[in-house]
Parts: sequence; C-alpha cells; structure tokens
Amino acid sequence: MASLALTRRRFNPVSRLSLHKCRSTFSRSGQAGEDRTPKQKLHIPSGFEVDLSHPTYVIWGSNTGVGKTLVSTGLAASLLNASQNLLYVKPVQTGFPQDSDSRYVSHKVKDILKQRKPSNNVHISHQVLKASPRAWELLPGSKGFGEVASYERAIQGMRNVCDYEGQTVQGLYKGLADLKLVCKTIYGWYEAVSPHLAAAGEKCSVDDCEVVENLQNSLREFNVDENNTNRWSIIETAGGVASPGPSGTLQCDLYRPFRLPSILVGDGRLGGISGTISAYETLCIRGYDICAVILADTGLSNEKCLSTYLHDRVPVFVLPKIPDDTNNTLLEWFSESYKVFSEIKDTLQTSYFKRIYRLHEMPMKARQILWWPFTQHSLVTEQSISLIDSRFGENFGVYKGKNHKDVKESIVQQFDACASWWTQGPSAILQTELAREVGYTTGRFGHVMYPENVYEPALHCAELLLEGVGKGWATRVFLSDNGSTAIEISLKMAFRKFAFDHGFLPEHFNEDLRKICPQFKVEIGTISYTTCAFFIEMTMEEFSEESYTGRGLFLDPPTVFLHNEEWQLHLPDALMYSDLKYPGLVIHASGGMHMIDPLFQRDLVKECRKRRIPVIFDEVFTGFWRLGAESAAEILGCAPDIACYAKLLTGGIVPLAATLATESIFEAFEGKSKLFALLHGHSYSGHAIGCAAAIKAIQWFKDAEMNLNICTDGSRLQELWDSKLVAKISALSSVKRVIALGTICALELQADESNTGYGSLLASSLVQKLRDDGVYMRPLGNVIYLMCGPATPPAMCSTLLQKLHKRLDEC
Amino acid sequence: MASLALTRRRFNPVSRLSLHKCRSTFSRSGQAGEDRTPKQKLHIPSGFEVDLSHPTYVIWGSNTGVGKTLVSTGLAASLLNASQNLLYVKPVQTGFPQDSDSRYVSHKVKDILKQRKPSNNVHISHQVLKASPRAWELLPGSKGFGEVASYERAIQGMRNVCDYEGQTVQGLYKGLADLKLVCKTIYGWYEAVSPHLAAAGEKCSVDDCEVVENLQNSLREFNVDENNTNRWSIIETAGGVASPGPSGTLQCDLYRPFRLPSILVGDGRLGGISGTISAYETLCIRGYDICAVILADTGLSNEKCLSTYLHDRVPVFVLPKIPDDTNNTLLEWFSESYKVFSEIKDTLQTSYFKRIYRLHEMPMKARQILWWPFTQHSLVTEQSISLIDSRFGENFGVYKGKNHKDVKESIVQQFDACASWWTQGPSAILQTELAREVGYTTGRFGHVMYPENVYEPALHCAELLLEGVGKGWATRVFLSDNGSTAIEISLKMAFRKFAFDHGFLPEHFNEDLRKICPQFKVEIGTISYTTCAFFIEMTMEEFSEESYTGRGLFLDPPTVFLHNEEWQLHLPDALMYSDLKYPGLVIHASGGMHMIDPLFQRDLVKECRKRRIPVIFDEVFTGFWRLGAESAAEILGCAPDIACYAKLLTGGIVPLAATLATESIFEAFEGKSKLFALLHGHSYSGHAIGCAAAIKAIQWFKDAEMNLNICTDGSRLQELWDSKLVAKISALSSVKRVIALGTICALELQADESNTGYGSLLASSLVQKLRDDGVYMRPLGNVIYLMCGPATPPAMCSTLLQKLHKRLDEC
Repeated sequence: MASLALTRRRFNPVSRLSLHKCRSTFSRSGQAGEDRTPKQKLHIPSGFEVDLSHPTYVIWGSNTGVGKTLVSTGLAASLLNASQNLLYVKPVQTGFPQDSDSRYVSHKVKDILKQRKPSNNVHISHQVLKASPRAWELLPGSKGFGEVASYERAIQGMRNVCDYEGQTVQGLYKGLADLKLVCKTIYGWYEAVSPHLAAAGEKCSVDDCEVVENLQNSLREFNVDENNTNRWSIIETAGGVASPGPSGTLQCDLYRPFRLPSILVGDGRLGGISGTISAYETLCIRGYDICAVILADTGLSNEKCLSTYLHDRVPVFVLPKIPDDTNNTLLEWFSESYKVFSEIKDTLQTSYFKRIYRLHEMPMKARQILWWPFTQHSLVTEQSISLIDSRFGENFGVYKGKNHKDVKESIVQQFDACASWWTQGPSAILQTELAREVGYTTGRFGHVMYPENVYEPALHCAELLLEGVGKGWATRVFLSDNGSTAIEISLKMAFRKFAFDHGFLPEHFNEDLRKICPQFKVEIGTISYTTCAFFIEMTMEEFSEESYTGRGLFLDPPTVFLHNEEWQLHLPDALMYSDLKYPGLVIHASGGMHMIDPLFQRDLVKECRKRRIPVIFDEVFTGFWRLGAESAAEILGCAPDIACYAKLLTGGIVPLAATLATESIFEAFEGKSKLFALLHGHSYSGHAIGCAAAIKAIQWFKDAEMNLNICTDGSRLQELWDSKLVAKISALSSVKRVIALGTICALELQADESNTGYGSLLASSLVQKLRDDGVYMRPLGNVIYLMCGPATPPAMCSTLLQKLHKRLDEC
Repeated sequence: MASLALTRRRFNPVSRLSLHKCRSTFSRSGQAGEDRTPKQKLHIPSGFEVDLSHPTYVIWGSNTGVGKTLVSTGLAASLLNASQNLLYVKPVQTGFPQDSDSRYVSHKVKDILKQRKPSNNVHISHQVLKASPRAWELLPGSKGFGEVASYERAIQGMRNVCDYEGQTVQGLYKGLADLKLVCKTIYGWYEAVSPHLAAAGEKCSVDDCEVVENLQNSLREFNVDENNTNRWSIIETAGGVASPGPSGTLQCDLYRPFRLPSILVGDGRLGGISGTISAYETLCIRGYDICAVILADTGLSNEKCLSTYLHDRVPVFVLPKIPDDTNNTLLEWFSESYKVFSEIKDTLQTSYFKRIYRLHEMPMKARQILWWPFTQHSLVTEQSISLIDSRFGENFGVYKGKNHKDVKESIVQQFDACASWWTQGPSAILQTELAREVGYTTGRFGHVMYPENVYEPALHCAELLLEGVGKGWATRVFLSDNGSTAIEISLKMAFRKFAFDHGFLPEHFNEDLRKICPQFKVEIGTISYTTCAFFIEMTMEEFSEESYTGRGLFLDPPTVFLHNEEWQLHLPDALMYSDLKYPGLVIHASGGMHMIDPLFQRDLVKECRKRRIPVIFDEVFTGFWRLGAESAAEILGCAPDIACYAKLLTGGIVPLAATLATESIFEAFEGKSKLFALLHGHSYSGHAIGCAAAIKAIQWFKDAEMNLNICTDGSRLQELWDSKLVAKISALSSVKRVIALGTICALELQADESNTGYGSLLASSLVQKLRDDGVYMRPLGNVIYLMCGPATPPAMCSTLLQKLHKRLDEC
C-alpha cells in the first residue's frame, strides 16, 4: 500500500506571536534548548492498514488523571473473563520506568484474575520496546536483565529494551485453549511530563511516522501471532486528547491515520463536564467515532449533563468512586466495577459488530438505492464499488475484505489520484484546520441570505480573490455555489457586455446577438466546458448527452506534450495552412488533458480584444495552484475580462464558486431597474461556510510556512513531478504523450483509433492494478492522470510516479 | 426588537441511555430530587442588543481553578490605571457568599490601586443582585444590612439582595474625572458545586432567558449610567467553557446570543495543553471569536505548544507562576504581572478597534467589490445594506449604528423571516448540532468522489430520504449539489422515461420528443421554477431575464386563499368555462405565493398518468416540513414518479440536492453502454458534508423530543400561525389575500394594477418598518411573507404576526 509522507509541518516561529514579547519578561534560564523547532511529519508508513478482523479501541482521556489505565485494566479483566485474547498497547509513556501503565495493567489484571478466576488459563506478558537512555539506565537490572545485546549505542536515540515478563494465571477449567494478555509499552521516557517535553529534555525524540509505524507493527504482530479469532486490541493514549505526542503533534492528530473507534474517559470531578464535552468535540472535529464515555463517580453526577449533551449518540457509563487512598490495591473497586465493565465490553462488542455489518452491507445497499452521475449502473458490480471509510489528507481509507479473496478485512490507504473530480487540495493538517473553520462558521452563521447583505466570510473571500487571482484586472466578485453556475454567469456577463459594446438595444439583445453574430450562438446550458480560451481543454464530445449540443465557435488549438523524452508541439491542420485565420473548426474528440500552446492563447485573447469580444477564462479546474501558479492567467501572462473559479477554491471541501469581472463588465448591468441587473443566483450563492473554507484554503496554500511547496518568491509551486521519471515514462512504448504541470501528471496511452474515445476501457486494467498499489485513479478514456494537492510533498509524487512507471512498464 | 423564545429544549429522558442501567447499580440515596428535568429555554429577551460603543469581553476558563478571577482582577487594575471605567459582572456564582469573585475583584483591585496609584480617583462598588434563600440567609447582616424591603418572600425563588459596598481610592492628580469600577454578581447560590446542581439542590433555578436578560440589563445600566466614553465591560463565566449554567444549558450555549469577543484562560498545568485546545475548539464551533489566550506559568511551557497550535490566529500571554500559598495576598504577583496585563489590555483594545473599524468599512467595501445576484446595484445604498454579524437559530445579529441616526452602535436581533431564500430550518440548538456534525464530517471525509463509491453520509442520507419523503414510491436517490441541478436531472429523467414509454429511438430522442409533442418542449435551463405541477407556484414572469424564455405547457390553476376572514377559491377563466379541458394557457404574473387547489393537482397527476407522462414534484421549496408535512406529496395525497429536494434538506446550512425516482424511471437508463447512463453531475455531487448535515436535519426535524412542533402521530407540524390573528389580518383593508400553511404565512397587499409586479416597491416601506421591529423580510413585489423553521415555537410566530398586524393596521 501507500508509502507516503503525508505532509510536513514546521513550528511557527514563536517570535511572530505577542507571546514572545511577554515571555521575555518571564523567560527562565536554561530553556533555550526547548526553542528548537522539531520537524513534524504526519506520515502513513508503507503497507499501512487498519485490521478489522477483531475489535480495536483507543482509550482517550478528557484530562490527565481521569483513570484511563483503570478503565484499560477493568476492560482487560472483563475481556479475559469472557475468553478473549487481548493486546494492550501504551505507545507513549513518560515518567518511565517508575510509571508504566502497561506494567500496571499486566500486574493488576493478574491480581484481579487470581481473585475472579477465568475459565481459561491466561498467559500475561509485559514488554517495553524502546526507552530513552535516561529511562533505560534505570530499568531494573538494565545492565544485566534479559538480553541487552541488540540495543543501539547512539546516545541521542531511543534504546531497545528487552524488559520482558511473563506469567500464567490458572483457569477454572482444563482443556480450554489458553488465553493471552499481551501488554506493551512502545516508548518510555524518564521525565514525568508531557511526551514532547520529555523527548526534548532527554534529547531523544521520535518522528510521528515512527510512532505510527511501531504502533501498527505491534498491532500486526499480535494478529499474526494468534490463530484464535477471539481477539481484542486496546491502545491507551497519554494525557488528554490534545496532549502533544513526542514530536509535539497533538495525539488526536498523531493517531488520526488509524481513525480507530474510541472510548473517552470523562472527568467526574468539578469542571469535568466541561472538560469531557470539550474533549469529545476535539475528537469529533477530527473525524473520530466515540463509542462510549466512561467516568468515575465523584458524587457530582456529571454523567447526567453528559447524557443530556450526548443525547442518544454515545452511551455514558459510570464507574464507582475511586478510593482516595493511594495505597489501596483497588481490587475491591475492580470487583465493584465488574458489572459496569461487563456492560462496557458488551456495548463495544455490539458497536464493533454493527460497524462490520454496516461495512458488509454498504456496497450492496449503495448498488440498490444510489443513482450515481455519469455511471452506467449495469456495468457496476458490488465488487467494483469502493467503500471509502474516511479521507486523511490526500489519502482515502478504503475498506477491503469481504469481497477480496485471501485478504483480511481491513481499511487500506489509497492516494486519491483523481483528486475527487479535481477538487482536492488539503493535506491532513489543512483538513483539520478546515474542519475547525467550517465548524466555527456553522456555529457563527450557518447560512445567511446573500443579496444586499454583507457578512465577514463573503466579503473577506471576495477581498482575497481580488488580491490573489483577480489582482491587476478584476474589481468585482460574483459568488455563486458551483462551477457550472459560475460559467453560466460569466456567459451572461459576456453577452451583455458584447451587446453594449456593439450598440444593441438593451431589450431582447440576446435575440439581436444571435441575428447579428450567428457564430456566437453559445447556448446557456449547465455544463459548458468548452466555451472560451482555456489553458487546459477538457473536451467531452463523445461524452455529450442527448440533450446537450455544443454551440459556438470551437477552435482547434495547437497543443504541447512530452513524447519519447522530448517536448513536442502539435499544430492542427487549420493552423498548418491558414496562418492564424481560424475558420469555425470543431475540436476533434481527444477525451483527455491537452496542454494548449500559451502563445496561441495569448494571440487569441488579443484577437478577441481587437474585435471587442469579452474574454472569459474558465479557471474552475485550473485555479488555485492546479497548474503550479495560483491562476493559469499568471502562467499565460495575460488577463481576462471575466474568470470563473470553483473546485479547489474551498480547498475541495464544499461547493462554492466565484465569477470575477472587470468594472466595465459590471457597469454593463447598471441601470435604473432591477430588470437590467444580473438576474442569476441560487439559494446558497456565497454561502458563509463555503466562503470560510475558501478563505482558509486560499491563505493556507500560499503561506510558505504551511505549504512547503511554495517557492521563495511566492508565485509558483516547486516542481512536484520528478522530471527524469516523467521523461522515462514518456519513452515507454505504451505511452503516446505525457504532460506534467503543477499538480497534474497526465498521459495518453497508445491505442488504436477505435479505442481512443471516452468510453474506452483500455486503461481499466492499469487503473485496477494501481488501486491494488494504493493509488486511486479514474481514467478519461485512454488518458490517465495523477493529481495531487498544492501542498503534496514531491517525495510522495515520486512514489506515485514510480508505481505508475512500474505498471506501465509491465504493459 | 425581537421578543422571541428562540427555542425549547427538554432533557433527554435518561432512561433511554445505557447510562441508566449502569447508574442503577451505583445510585446513591437522596438524589431523586435531581432527576427532575428543568425546562431549558435559549431565549432572546425583548429589545435584546449588544452594545458596541465600548469593549466588552467574556472571560472563559479552560477548566475550573485556572485563574479566571485573577485575570479579571489584573485586567481591571490595568484598565483603571489607564483611566478606563469598568463594569465587572459575574452572572453566576456558586459557593456564595463565602466565595464571591466580584467581591474578590473589588477588594483586590482596591488594594492594587492603593499600591499602584491611579491618576484619577476611582470609586469601587460591589453589588450582588440575587441569591438563593440559603445563600441569602448567610449574607453578612442579611437581616439588617442595607435595605431589604424589596426582596421576594417566595421560598423557592431567588431573593433580591441589597448587599452594596462602595469605596473610593484617591488618585494622583486632582481635577481629573472620577473613574468607576462597578463589580456585580447577578446570581449567587450557596453550594460550591456546578450552578445546575446548586440551583437544583437549593430548589431555586433560573431560566436561561432570565440569565440572559439580567446580564443584558446589567450591561445596559452601566452604559446608561455613564457619559464617559472610556468604558469597558468584563463578564466572567463560571467553571469551564462547557460547564452547565443554572438550568443545565452549557454556558457556551447560554451566552451565545451575545456572541461577545472572548478571552480564554488556559491551563498551564500538566494536561493543560489538551484542556486549553479543546476548550478553544468548543468555543470555536459555537461561533465565538477568541481574542487572547492567557495562562499562568507552571514551568511546563504549555504556551509553546499552544502558540504552535494557534498559529497566528490568537496571541498567547503568559502570567508569572501563581504562588501556592493560599494566604498570599498576591499583591506582589499582581505587581509582577503588571506588564503582561498591560499588553493584554492593549491587545484587547486593538482587537476592539479593529472590529469596529471593520464593521464600519464592510458595507462600503461590499458595495465596492461584491456583485450580488438579482440585485440592481444602482439602487443599493450603503445604508440599505444589512451587515449580518451572525445567525443564532432563526435570528440574525445585525449591525446598527454608524449610518443610523440617534442609535448607539450595536448588534440587534432580526428574525430571518425570509428564511434566507427559504432555506432555513435550524433552531439555535440544531445549529450547534450541525456545527459539530459538519466539523466531524470535514475531519472524517472532507469531500470524496461520489460515482461508483460509497461512504456513510451519502448512503445514510439516501436511506433516510427513501424512508421519509420517498416512502412508498421512490427506490432511487440521485444526489447532486443544488436545487436547479436537481430539477435539470428530473427533467432528463422524465424525458428519457417518456421517450421509452412512447417507443422513441434512444438516439436523439429529445429531437423526436419535440417533433411529436410540441407542447412538451420544456427547455433545459438552469432555473426552471415553473416546470410541472407544484403545490405552491412561484411565478417569475416579469422577473424573467433576457436569456430565459419559459417554454412548456403552462396551466392556470385554481388557487385558494383567505380574504376577509373567509377561505376563497379562485378559478381561472379557463376552468370557469371549459370544464377541466385545459388549453395551453400561460399563467398571468402574480409575483407571489399561490396555494393551488389540491384537487386540481391530484386531477392533473391522474391525467398525466393516463397519458403516460412522468410526473415530477418540485419539492425544492416545499420539502422537509415547509408546508407542515415532511413533503407536499403527503398533503396532496398522491405520489410522483420523480421528486426534487434541496433548500431545507440540509437544514439550510450548505447546498445539497436530491432527485428521487421510481425504479421504472431508473430502468430507462439501464443499458450496455455508459453513453446510455444519466450523464449529469457536478464535482460536489453528493458531497459528504452536505449529506451529513442532511442526515442530522432530517432526523432532528422529525424527532418529537427535539422538535416540539411535531404532532403526536409524527406526520404533521402543529399549527404555527394563530388562526385568529391570521383571520384578523385577512380582514384588513390593505390586505388582498392571505395564506398560512406550515412554516409560511404570506399575504398579498391591495394594490393598483400598475403596482402588482415583482418590481413593485409597494411593500418596501412596510418591510423597512418591520426591520426596525426586528423582523427581516424581503418582499416579492406586493406579496410579503413570514417564514419560520419547522421547530420555531408558535409563540414566536404569534409575536411576528402581531408585529405584522400592527404595521399593516397603520397602512
């Protein structure tokens, strides 16, 4: 599966914040070392998958000290009593080795089971994998205990630990299969502080990707090890939901690639209602499913308010009051808690089965009741449907299993290489930012009426558009709700302006327009991909529907592409022989991405201007860094009168569209009557949530601190596609032409004449193989493409190219 | 302004939750009294407004015990030293009178000022307004202190308190104006627990609306009292951001009507990073703006992680370590903190000025750069633009001031009576639910490709549609992204089905269709309001644009309405004389809402069926309780072949649309080739966020526990518009006709022939007056209407009707 460094994040230089000014007043000596900015990576390691063959839960805390480990212990005992094998993992432990939650669980469960005999023999083991040097030195018998030959001597790194304990508790009945409780700590640091401080203080941090990878390995090992299907895994986090992990990345972000079903241990103390609800909301807006809230009684009945808040979404469980006495063995408490833990176990079991049942039925149900656009349902089998469990930045989490032979049920990662119909831009970090921003705007505005009103998101979005893609030419922003609407609006603008400039009467001038300019009879239809001069032309002729007839003056443009490692210019016949006098040619279906010669387009714009024909740039697809600059107009080096934006405008999160225009276009609609205005709009034109997403995305993509692909002058993305690899691909015999520009790398496969149409199935087998490689592609006939986001690391793009090259080479 | 009970909320019966099963194991005696379910109301009291003439901030805590009151005190001293008058309010205090934050602030500020002399004389007062009987008894000298004549003797209620202290600190310079520090506690309870427990335990709770009203009064009193413009107000909440208020409503929800700029006191302790970030996110998704995060140093440098997380959105301030010794007067600590508080004060001041500056420039900027749909910009003055600061359920918060004579700058409430282009449904509570749901879905999915994929929100949304509005007839759901697309899709479906049923060739059948059925030549345009048989017909003839010509067989239907307190049936000429043989009449422009005779519509459906013409119900407007039932089809008593939904589908939060169809419609698109499929869709068709909002809204509206308007059988809303008031309005001489159905109450004003069109300005002055009354209306020519949400309390509707009646009566 995917081996993709999902995104990078740099610490914000603290100096930009007023914090710094204040801190200087109180800066303590000896803290300078902490100021270094660790390089955080949210990484999905190679072959990353989440096993669904048995229940796996993450235990989160609404604060420190709320009893996560007691919950782990009670649940573990309850599961073992119900004849389930269990893996307990504590990925990150501080205060180690004095504190060790995994050791506590292993010891305490042993004691509980000795009291409350299990049916089966239970083998309980405890293991610590890696410790900071300082913690390692303190391990009981670290210099003699177990086998220590394999640890690394590097002072700065984590050391391998061979601290392994094992013990068996005898069960009630003989002859039953032995059970296992495997308790593991992956990383231990000495200082009893937050992991990021401990890691920094002890000068041995670990990357996010390493944490994720080692956790994944621990989960996998347990699964491989066991033939028994009665298995559970529990992962216990450190501190609160948003407490930082070793690198400083918040744990709720660090473990997000797994998106495991979650248990939230709430706070029964004074203030605990607030803390629990807030922690729940923090998990929510990162896309976690919380299956249970558990809290210990303190006499304040916090659970009542929590139940009201959680309504019927999440059950709340109350554990008996935890004795204050720290010397208490708690065995009595665990005994009292037995019933509750048993109910929790049943609830989690039911929740797991419900999830699996739902995953099983979803493709079938989808086939039964959904009606997809652009899809011949007769050709769709249940097996061919992708069940998308979630998105994490550029990656889908796709369900695999039931219909895939020899594959364990799991969620596997696939890079969304079609960028979900060319809309996608978010990295994992931007996705979280957008979730909070979209949540804020829903809470503040929901949706409010647009015309003759002003509200911050709409105005700010318009300002950013004029400062960005509209800079130097546009003065007006017409917000609508989707790309096709933006195009329709642009055509209405252009017709009116044309009529004005050419002296038609304002009434019925559309009819006049058609009489006088028969070649300009573009019909206002909903989908008008090929209206004017586009940089990348999407032709849809064979794709056209019964109700759609393209009407207009279609030009056959010269195109450029890479073939056999050389750039080539393809001139259409008309240009070969007619010296820039374009007759009314219709583009021949090519069903794919063509990079049109910019010189041709600049000339076309010039010719239009001479004839006082308004020029529209359709940047619905090309806008917002798709081609490596914020707008295609920048690359083209000339400005339109009108331009349309959608898709990436909101980062690809929700629909929104904008049509930008010059003041002289706007003025063509001024008059004394409303009837002379631009009468076009939808209920959700300029809706606040879309505008807020757009504001965040526009700013984020060009913030060099956030988007590491932005070049120093801020106007271009760095090259994302390795030019050598691209050239190599262009030299393959199966490849007809390649273009790589900005976030796109597209190629046309060699094919017979009969196979070149949109309906072509030529690329299908290739696409299927790449999906198995963790790349989710959709072909455009015999054209296939990889599309990443503006912030996708080039290393990730190279991995994609390598996979593509390998599969093409096999053709 | 509005006097509207915004929404009601009932406690969820705890018995529905598994909590209850568990609690029973551990229920303590003597708690039965706590089980009563207080009736919560989020209420905007009469004349509610938020004063913008000076800075007002709310101080929130990320937990209890994080030092909110120390921040209030330090900030207060800093402001007084900078010659600002200050109001400090603690709306809710528990542990009273032993604990009193307002008393602490008044006393401590006095001590600080005695040390650090202010320029002016400062008069410091402290006052408590209401206390529970138990707390009241304990007030120092409660039976003799001050004037106690006015308190209420009711044992169960809060008692008025006349505990007033005043003292003056001498300033450095004579002749300067005296300053005031007014410290107030509004409600005090004895028990040192969460306010909802204290209120329940002491058997004297207060409604949310009362808290909001009294807080508003305290703020207003301070403003009226002072001529001095150097004023600040600070409100300190109790506990954490989501700690319950007296009624059990979370404080972040309780104070949301004010949506005041906020200060979050973070937690510097272990676990405090998580708690602070979560608290921040809880405020965010309720639409609060956080202007500063302040935390006390504990040596853990929590501020570093917080600054990284907050990036450049919010500055973080660090206060010196608070001495552990509880006997410490902290005067030294306040002295050490002086610089930080001064910086905080400056930051807040700047933030206030920026906000005001932005509010001032927004209408002007909007006029300069926005291009609104359906708007003749020449007719829009800066004064006529509504600046919407936020939405809270059915209400807009609208900025008033700069351009309004004799009005202090403020945010006033206006009921969104046009339901923002007929989209709106959320109550304040649903809005918060949607914010969390939309945040969750962004975090989990963002947007993912729809065709041939399945993901939970799309499938679940489709299931709910088929179980709800599609029940009994529809089997397929075609999701798209806006209402006009849903209509286009429905027309494509109908044409294909018609062609199939009538034996046309599949190729080019649209042309054939036109040849054979010239009367059926409906053009596929983007906005097609009048396509088929609608229950409420929106005619747009005079409104029609140059590029839009309605083509089709338009019928003049019989309509029903209330006039002079009697229901009347209006028969068009064609029906008067032709006995149900409809020639191809074109509807005469009426520019408003007409309720068409259901009998006529049922007959029309029958006639279509006889002729094998597919029937489309356009429920974009009528769907989801707009007319009092989940679908208009239910009221009509007959089912369509195809139906379209949008607007209220998502509760009115984000665009999404659905076209539902029968299986036989779907089958007309089955074939061996993709070219035979329904080739229509947008990038964001079936986008996850829209689907998630739809799921929440669909379920919420019909949940009788959440939506108190749902009648016992679940199929209808209770009558929302007082029938007597509606009849009274219909009897006014200025009113031609009235209809009231479901969430709509519309009326046509009497007018000359020349004034009846869409462009009519007749209703304008009426609409303007109603806006001053707190009702945001938009006229449709001489038709005006009130539109509420499916969950709007009838009392709120009556208030609207009364305002309308009053203004109409003046006409």
